[in-house]
Amino acid sequence: MLESMSLLASAMPDLSVLQYSVVDNIFSMTVATMGAAAIFLFLSRSSVDPEYRPALMVSGLVVTIACYHYFMIRHSWQDAYALAEGGGGFVGTGAAFNDFYRYADWILTVPLLMVELVAVLRLQASKARSLLTRLVIAAALMIALGYPGEVIANPEGWTARVVWGALSSVPFFYILYVLWVELTKSLETQPVAARKLIEIARLVLLITWAVYPIAYALGGTVTALEAKAGGSVDASGIVYLQVGYAIADMTAKAGFGMLIYFIARAKSTGVENNVGGESTASPAIA
Amino acid sequence: MLESMSLLASAMPDLSVLQYSVVDNIFSMTVATMGAAAIFLFLSRSSVDPEYRPALMVSGLVVTIACYHYFMIRHSWQDAYALAEGGGGFVGTGAAFNDFYRYADWILTVPLLMVELVAVLRLQASKARSLLTRLVIAAALMIALGYPGEVIANPEGWTARVVWGALSSVPFFYILYVLWVELTKSLETQPVAARKLIEIARLVLLITWAVYPIAYALGGTVTALEAKAGGSVDASGIVYLQVGYAIADMTAKAGFGMLIYFIARAKSTGVENNVGGESTASPAIA
Repeated sequence: MLESMSLLASAMPDLSVLQYSVVDNIFSMTVATMGAAAIFLFLSRSSVDPEYRPALMVSGLVVTIACYHYFMIRHSWQDAYALAEGGGGFVGTGAAFNDFYRYADWILTVPLLMVELVAVLRLQASKARSLLTRLVIAAALMIALGYPGEVIANPEGWTARVVWGALSSVPFFYILYVLWVELTKSLETQPVAARKLIEIARLVLLITWAVYPIAYALGGTVTALEAKAGGSVDASGIVYLQVGYAIADMTAKAGFGMLIYFIARAKSTGVENNVGGESTASPAIA
Repeated sequence: MLESMSLLASAMPDLSVLQYSVVDNIFSMTVATMGAAAIFLFLSRSSVDPEYRPALMVSGLVVTIACYHYFMIRHSWQDAYALAEGGGGFVGTGAAFNDFYRYADWILTVPLLMVELVAVLRLQASKARSLLTRLVIAAALMIALGYPGEVIANPEGWTARVVWGALSSVPFFYILYVLWVELTKSLETQPVAARKLIEIARLVLLITWAVYPIAYALGGTVTALEAKAGGSVDASGIVYLQVGYAIADMTAKAGFGMLIYFIARAKSTGVENNVGGESTASPAIA
């Protein structure tokens, strides 16, 4: 792990102008998305019932933390690359692209994502506590076990990367399983207006979370690792990985936060349940 | 003291890429944690009873100040080091890593930490005043006496460092003793819902505060001082010191602030006491 990290520092693969720009721009777009979602979620607290405000608060914190990290990730990307002489592409400057930002982000936000979901479901207190304990421990394990594999940057480390990825997948599938089962169980006790939304949340969770192992796998093919190690091979692995993670983060954090808002609104009393629809209930408290 | 400070300016020990990155990343993660905690604490004031809002306000200020200082500490760290030619590690640029940021932070935040704790306990006014006076004076002494030892960077100064450390420990233990005794005494007068949380706060205080003298000691072993003085010796002391302080600061400020929030919420009337639990009380005032 130590050698692969120091390798990383000087081994950013050459990129075409398009490859560099796609990654650079998706990072910028992610900053904008997360920042806007943060403002929306914080300001929308007053338009749901008080018991759903903690869920929106935590959702807002998740996208705020992600906004900070994508700003820093983009900065690190721009530090790691310089326009090649002649301008035909981008070459590594010798500075490492800091992969750890994304892991620092996940360490902070994934447990909070569990909290926002459990908070909006409003399960029984003892049930909520035991559920959160299990989910938070599993999330920490998932991230801690994925990181050693992520920083492997030499093709010989491919097997080790697969092993770390597999280990990390155990808590990953456990979390998805627990959330799926709990969301399904909770459907009976939720108001009709919220059920459809919770079904969507269940699906969004499953689809967006599926992106992470796929991006991890694409970024860690032997070809991608060879590119990372600085050969003249194609560098598309690193592009897929960064774009995949950025899109998944936008959906799983900003998109999921919006769903939490709609669920909270559907469950609030004295709030009309159609944002764009005609007023059919008493005026919203906002 | 002056000579050791000027020594420091040009004597950052060589670090491996991993050593440099671990410190750099833990600083970034601390910025994110403190910033998120600040937003949470400021926005949560509306969800506790008015008499507990000052406690949340002060807790929010503590993490805001810490967020600023860690941003600056990280900046100073990046200024003090540059990638070595060939990229195999990091070497000092000649710019000093500014240790004083952390002490400036402590001078401002440690007295405020005492204020947030006394504010959430809501002791009798005269009692609170006398308690705060003693705690704030002790905190100032503790920090002022620790600093001269912290900036010693030559192995010959080891004895002086130990003496300053020992002097600083007197008010340190006095504070811990007073807080432990007062927290224990206050338990009887606190509502049942808050007691468990105050017991946790007492424990968090003891454990996180214990990290500071340990980090001080690890950063000041003869080996660590030799490394600081710019020899070719192992530089892990400086890494332990920075990582130890960062983790302790996150727990003692952001973590402790969260506890203050939970205590305030448990003591608020008309607020349900479980974030994820079913509504059992009248709607929260928010």
